[in-house]
Amino acid sequence: MAKPLILVTNDDGITAPGLRALIRFMKEIGDVVVVAPDSPQSGMGHAITIDNTLYIKKITVDPKDGALAEYSCSGTPADCVKLGLRELLDRKPDLCVSGINHGSNSSINVIYSGTMSAAIEAGIEGIPAIGFSLCDYGWNANFEPGKEAIQQIVRQAIVQGIPKGVVLNVNIPKTDSDTPMGIKVCRQARANWKEEFDKRTSPNGKEYYWLTGEFELLDNGEDTDEFALSKGYISIVPTQFDLTAYHAIQQLNTWKLNA
Amino acid sequence: MAKPLILVTNDDGITAPGLRALIRFMKEIGDVVVVAPDSPQSGMGHAITIDNTLYIKKITVDPKDGALAEYSCSGTPADCVKLGLRELLDRKPDLCVSGINHGSNSSINVIYSGTMSAAIEAGIEGIPAIGFSLCDYGWNANFEPGKEAIQQIVRQAIVQGIPKGVVLNVNIPKTDSDTPMGIKVCRQARANWKEEFDKRTSPNGKEYYWLTGEFELLDNGEDTDEFALSKGYISIVPTQFDLTAYHAIQQLNTWKLNA
Repeated sequence: MAKPLILVTNDDGITAPGLRALIRFMKEIGDVVVVAPDSPQSGMGHAITIDNTLYIKKITVDPKDGALAEYSCSGTPADCVKLGLRELLDRKPDLCVSGINHGSNSSINVIYSGTMSAAIEAGIEGIPAIGFSLCDYGWNANFEPGKEAIQQIVRQAIVQGIPKGVVLNVNIPKTDSDTPMGIKVCRQARANWKEEFDKRTSPNGKEYYWLTGEFELLDNGEDTDEFALSKGYISIVPTQFDLTAYHAIQQLNTWKLNA
Repeated sequence: MAKPLILVTNDDGITAPGLRALIRFMKEIGDVVVVAPDSPQSGMGHAITIDNTLYIKKITVDPKDGALAEYSCSGTPADCVKLGLRELLDRKPDLCVSGINHGSNSSINVIYSGTMSAAIEAGIEGIPAIGFSLCDYGWNANFEPGKEAIQQIVRQAIVQGIPKGVVLNVNIPKTDSDTPMGIKVCRQARANWKEEFDKRTSPNGKEYYWLTGEFELLDNGEDTDEFALSKGYISIVPTQFDLTAYHAIQQLNTWKLNA
């Protein structure tokens, strides 16, 4: 069997240690082509570049990481996947992996996540796709403890396939231990962000704001990603891009419309 | 009963004719406060501004439109909603409406939509929210034929409430007729974009790309938004931000993990 072709991307940018670790982990499983943003794109959600030009550069960040080819792109994570599939790869990849994100994408964060938008973009194109995130925002975070689990999940995805219309959102708890971590399939926990805007005045007297906030968990379930992570497990949430709330259709059909 | 307080936003920017029409339509139902981007933000998905400063300006684009207050914001549609709720409004609004978008947000477009990201952001905060889009990209599009239906939907949302965890994605077909349009509750059609990258060379010899593409419908169902729109109906898709693919959990639990 030929080696699987794996498209690797992220939202922290092509030099991010989390991406470099993912390339090395994937190199042991298949042939790796990297298409990643040339600068950080965190919080970009599922943005695409429609009113601006896109640039691509063939580069090698570190030959030791062992990618077949690496491209940096001026666009968003979703742009990177589109460009990879349409312009840069010779054939459809067998898998697309995004990450490893520096920071959690569990719970409601999936909505804001550039990491997951790349995976979802690949999923829309019918490519099995997985986003990986480490619950540690540090640039020097330790990605090694997640290696075995990441490789297991990727191997299973290649062998078993991922259900149609579904991509995987994998979050890895922060740990320094070498012990293999357990893995739990979960649902997305209900939560939101309690934003606070930090209001400041610029040197020339103009008011501006920084978006800050605290994560607020609104869910006591023991089947959620947040619960699994809090117990030291890796969480896998099957995530879909058909956003239809089927259960609400009947109720809406009772509305008095077309009167 | 006090007039409902309605937060109005969009992704085409505060001067967009679609937003101005929505302000006028909402003015007949409640008190309107506008917080909208100071420049177009189409295709921004659910982006938020975390690595940059945010500016807000109190302005009046057209006093005849009748908003209580209007603010332009340097951020994304999701930023506008967060700022509106946390900083600018005296009380929690009874409803948030986003649009009227210049262009369709039906089917898979919901994923890329700044219009819908604003509505989803409000939904996450527990506020009934609706995104409205007209299937006409023209800046001078005619928003009037949709007026009656938009007001009906908003009135029903206020009276009946919108199911928890659900926001509405409303798309309005292009028409010049005055005849009231029928309304159908639908599911999101399966579709994707067949991208083509238009490769060009800049005056100084650098290669760049424009993202272009064709919408590809992959769904023959008669219960989809695309089908309803093709028959001249307004489509309402109940849309959720719990992205968990519950049906896939069982299958993933058969994977050989933690071996």
